[in-house]
Amino acid sequence: MSGEREQENAPGSPKHFNQTMAPLDIESNTAAQEMLDHEKNGHADRAQWVLNAPEPPSIWRELKDCISESLLPQCSNFLSSRNQHGYKPVLSVLRAIFPIITWSRNYKATKFKNDLLAGLTLASLCIPQGIGYATLAKLDPQYGLYTSVIPPLIYAVMGTSREIAIGPVAVVSLLLSSMIPKVQDPEANPIAYRNLVLTTTFFAGIFQSAFGLFRLGFLVDFLSHAAIVGFMAGAAIVIGLQQLKGLLAITHFTNKTDVISVLKATWISVHHSWNPHNFILGCSFLSFILSARFVGKRNKKLFWLPAIAPLVSVALSTLIVFLTRADKHGVKIIKHIQRGLNPSSVHQLQFNDPHIGQVAKIGLIVAVVALTEATAVGRSFASIKGYHIDGNKEMVAMGIMNIAGSFSSCYVATGSFSRSAVNFSAGCETAVSNIVMSITVIICLEFFTRLLYFTPIAILASIIISALPGLIDLNEIYKIWKVDKLDFLACTGAFFGVLFASVEIGLLAAVTISFVKIIISIRPGTEILGRLPGTDTFCDVDQYPMAIKTPPALIIRVKSGFLCFANANFVKENIMKWATEGDEKDTKGNGKKTFQLVILDMSNLTNVDIAGIACLEELPITNPRWQVIHKLKLANFVGKLGERVYLSVGEAVDACLNPKMAAI
Amino acid sequence: MSGEREQENAPGSPKHFNQTMAPLDIESNTAAQEMLDHEKNGHADRAQWVLNAPEPPSIWRELKDCISESLLPQCSNFLSSRNQHGYKPVLSVLRAIFPIITWSRNYKATKFKNDLLAGLTLASLCIPQGIGYATLAKLDPQYGLYTSVIPPLIYAVMGTSREIAIGPVAVVSLLLSSMIPKVQDPEANPIAYRNLVLTTTFFAGIFQSAFGLFRLGFLVDFLSHAAIVGFMAGAAIVIGLQQLKGLLAITHFTNKTDVISVLKATWISVHHSWNPHNFILGCSFLSFILSARFVGKRNKKLFWLPAIAPLVSVALSTLIVFLTRADKHGVKIIKHIQRGLNPSSVHQLQFNDPHIGQVAKIGLIVAVVALTEATAVGRSFASIKGYHIDGNKEMVAMGIMNIAGSFSSCYVATGSFSRSAVNFSAGCETAVSNIVMSITVIICLEFFTRLLYFTPIAILASIIISALPGLIDLNEIYKIWKVDKLDFLACTGAFFGVLFASVEIGLLAAVTISFVKIIISIRPGTEILGRLPGTDTFCDVDQYPMAIKTPPALIIRVKSGFLCFANANFVKENIMKWATEGDEKDTKGNGKKTFQLVILDMSNLTNVDIAGIACLEELPITNPRWQVIHKLKLANFVGKLGERVYLSVGEAVDACLNPKMAAI
Repeated sequence: MSGEREQENAPGSPKHFNQTMAPLDIESNTAAQEMLDHEKNGHADRAQWVLNAPEPPSIWRELKDCISESLLPQCSNFLSSRNQHGYKPVLSVLRAIFPIITWSRNYKATKFKNDLLAGLTLASLCIPQGIGYATLAKLDPQYGLYTSVIPPLIYAVMGTSREIAIGPVAVVSLLLSSMIPKVQDPEANPIAYRNLVLTTTFFAGIFQSAFGLFRLGFLVDFLSHAAIVGFMAGAAIVIGLQQLKGLLAITHFTNKTDVISVLKATWISVHHSWNPHNFILGCSFLSFILSARFVGKRNKKLFWLPAIAPLVSVALSTLIVFLTRADKHGVKIIKHIQRGLNPSSVHQLQFNDPHIGQVAKIGLIVAVVALTEATAVGRSFASIKGYHIDGNKEMVAMGIMNIAGSFSSCYVATGSFSRSAVNFSAGCETAVSNIVMSITVIICLEFFTRLLYFTPIAILASIIISALPGLIDLNEIYKIWKVDKLDFLACTGAFFGVLFASVEIGLLAAVTISFVKIIISIRPGTEILGRLPGTDTFCDVDQYPMAIKTPPALIIRVKSGFLCFANANFVKENIMKWATEGDEKDTKGNGKKTFQLVILDMSNLTNVDIAGIACLEELPITNPRWQVIHKLKLANFVGKLGERVYLSVGEAVDACLNPKMAAI
Repeated sequence: MSGEREQENAPGSPKHFNQTMAPLDIESNTAAQEMLDHEKNGHADRAQWVLNAPEPPSIWRELKDCISESLLPQCSNFLSSRNQHGYKPVLSVLRAIFPIITWSRNYKATKFKNDLLAGLTLASLCIPQGIGYATLAKLDPQYGLYTSVIPPLIYAVMGTSREIAIGPVAVVSLLLSSMIPKVQDPEANPIAYRNLVLTTTFFAGIFQSAFGLFRLGFLVDFLSHAAIVGFMAGAAIVIGLQQLKGLLAITHFTNKTDVISVLKATWISVHHSWNPHNFILGCSFLSFILSARFVGKRNKKLFWLPAIAPLVSVALSTLIVFLTRADKHGVKIIKHIQRGLNPSSVHQLQFNDPHIGQVAKIGLIVAVVALTEATAVGRSFASIKGYHIDGNKEMVAMGIMNIAGSFSSCYVATGSFSRSAVNFSAGCETAVSNIVMSITVIICLEFFTRLLYFTPIAILASIIISALPGLIDLNEIYKIWKVDKLDFLACTGAFFGVLFASVEIGLLAAVTISFVKIIISIRPGTEILGRLPGTDTFCDVDQYPMAIKTPPALIIRVKSGFLCFANANFVKENIMKWATEGDEKDTKGNGKKTFQLVILDMSNLTNVDIAGIACLEELPITNPRWQVIHKLKLANFVGKLGERVYLSVGEAVDACLNPKMAAI
């Protein structure tokens, strides 16, 4: 019978809408009368609707759909457009891979003016930051500049975000410098260390593009927002502490990243040998940069001031050191930066390294963290400007830019929080600002590396420190605390893990707590339903104190979406407790049992597993979902229940109170 | 206003039941009229019900309740009964700890007759099995007998299951013999190995009683049913393969447990030196035991035949070996079994061992596996006989029996699948059968150990092998395959993990797949709702093809119970896709957009986290649950929504279609 009705009232067939949708206020009396007539002889029909629902798609079907959707979107685009002739199908594939083809058509001179300005601002921030982050990653300074050349160019043609600023970032640099030294000591053999960093970059790119191609983007979602906020805040503090090395010009520093080791190492070093000049220089320019930012925040028109303050600091301090020859009095300077464009590094990738498995693992971790930061940045600006970012396409773009980067002496690049914000407030329109930035960095690499010879390292440290407050989002932490205590636990777990153990432990804590949260979320037991006065709606009596229980029927609803091994016994014990307690209370009060039957409302449950089915007593059930009724049928549970399956709680209560009506 | 109504219609106040519960068939017209009147001016009221729900209990409150419920049930029992005088309060506490006090009052001679019979049958099976399992655990044979003395006695006074048979079991013996040799080689130093086994037993007992005391019993639930079925089947095969050593009298056997290593070791040994007598003896008695079981299954009256077949085999084979002196021709025999009762082993526990951490870890794993087996056994027989088992009390009993066991030379004991089934079919009535068994084993230890001198080891192997088919539940595996493919994956993962890697890897695979199942279960996206013809119920249009969509309102429901970081972006993309696709389809067809507004039905969602809130667009929402509306209020989301919060989908659709009605 369901087949017949299906044809008649197929979902979405527009001609039937007016018939059945008749709102209750117009023609309300007749509609209500019809409804009530239907009520009497309709229960049997509706129970059949529940029992004879079509089979949900099997797991194979879902898997097939998912794979074909993942692997063949381009192909299907291609196939569907094959009927059109000429170069169009090729163009549509190219368009899908390179969004620049689409948006460059409407690109105008006015847009370019904005992008040029934003790109130049970006470059002025990117050059000192890049050198600083390369130092943080324990690489030679020029690698930071290399990384600001190739990846932004590739992202500009393949990416879908308009505001994101691509290049080296602090957290990824910290991750690399805290994990790769376990495989290869950077001081003992800097070349081998650099080669492993490049190999890690290659693996990170491979993982990122694989995530995108196989639509595994959701893996990145498993780092929960709260955990990321905590992790970023912890990482910011750790990065700041690492800068003590540059700021105090300490020669023997610890390789560990936790607060206690770093403070101890600093304490020892300061007592042995330190040069106050470095510290004074660094701190005075740090306060200059911070006050520039303060002014920039107060006066929105001066947005360029905080953006160029770092470059100004570099120029000024270099000039001071050059003029006073302070390097002879203990001020540490960058010295030599390799001149010229990115050299090829294809032959430096180490695939025969005995630690290749570990390097691949580091690549995976870095890939996930880099994607997390980029996705967060991209999504937040896209939602401000009101356009949509394709997560999977974005990952492919990131992956290819890192693979290409690993061939051209770049280490892992991603979207930077601080520079993207500058790019946005400088008024960028498209990814052309990244291209402008890249070209500016190329010019700098070709002609101006010599000028950076006398740049003091303390200035780089203060530039990095000045970028850190952007990573600590106190407002968000407060909001997390207010809304969800478990999320706050994930946040603090990640924070203290990074701070007192290591970056990996912090990440692990974050992921673990996030997962535990999901596991806990499916355990909250059961609730009792009551009828809301004046309606046919049944609700939780705790949430709606005005709801009224309907003895002799006790209506229990499982409070979780998935009845499975992890909560089945708990739910069963809960149901038994409710049923028994209800009895006891009423035995004392009235001298007779009030709840003679228990109805199980299944409207919450989206799925059930074999342990969940085993825990179900043979109670009347209402409103089972698609997967649930399907599995109950497979497990022969429906057979045991007989006809006691109802579409809604109201019907179940009516049928149980008036057995005649239920008799079919 | 909610407060006023609360007092008036407090849930559970019986005098209001008749007023509001008026079923729709009696007085249907007036009730319907009332309902419709209410409809018009009731929406505002009901939106207020949703918005002004009382605060759900905070996480601190829930934590406090949980802890006080866990730690103080005995105390509160005690306190509540303190007003009564005399020895009663003490008795009630004692009763809670020792259920035997309660049930022994009604214990009668007829019950004892049944228990005596069951206990003797049990002992006849337990003695050979115990010796065999001790050999499997790489301990001297008497330890198997010791383990059948103290733990059953303690369980009998503290446990709540009536059918469970306590003693050494195959899977736990396998676990011990596969994990402890990594810490201490049993062949190099058997005494140190034995001491570590006893220490592991102590830790297992501590963990088990802690689980019970702190109500952490749910941790045991995390080994899903499907995973246990697969694990047990794999373990049975591995145990069977281990018996090849005894059956073929191999002297140099591998310490690994995976199929490939064992078969390789067997192949090599058989080519070098093996004695066919052992094999012939073992196989002939194995076929005797198996045919006895076959006869016993056919004829229920002969249930004792399979139960005593092992003891008969032992007696017969010992006699044969004694008479023919086959031990001089290469048949391996048990030889010396220490005579006398359990010696104290308090001073043999090794708490200063350098590997103590690892031993504690093994103790935890063994504790969980042992509890899993015991709980499964206990629950299945309790549900057959229709009584309830208190999971937490059960765990405390198991823990204390293992702690006491570790002080008296017992290794980890738990409820055995095979012997509990024998106990049940032998007609046991209470745990007295365990006491009878224990006393029989004591007598055996005191007087008959010498008789076992000539017992061939091959017989022990065949007795163990004969008990294994009970661990492989093919029917259940088929049912799992039929009902839930993901559960089947967990089952096969555990099975092949045990078979081809190691016992720990198998357990790890089982737990991991079970968790992944939960994680996957929260990701299934969204569904579109339609109105079921003739009702005010809105259902999934895929499940109910007769349901009709209600343009211009598109109703979307999240298919998961928890909207969180792991599915928020997925859900958001789904909603946007639905909304856009709906638009596109209709743009082509009708030339105008049909879905002008999207309503989000939240009735599925039992919880939401900060990432979930961030993914919600400002759409009208219906039927938010307690936790959800609370968190939406905390996150200021409700403020943004204005009044567009509805109690049910029907109201939301009505209000959206008739804006006048929604205006308050």
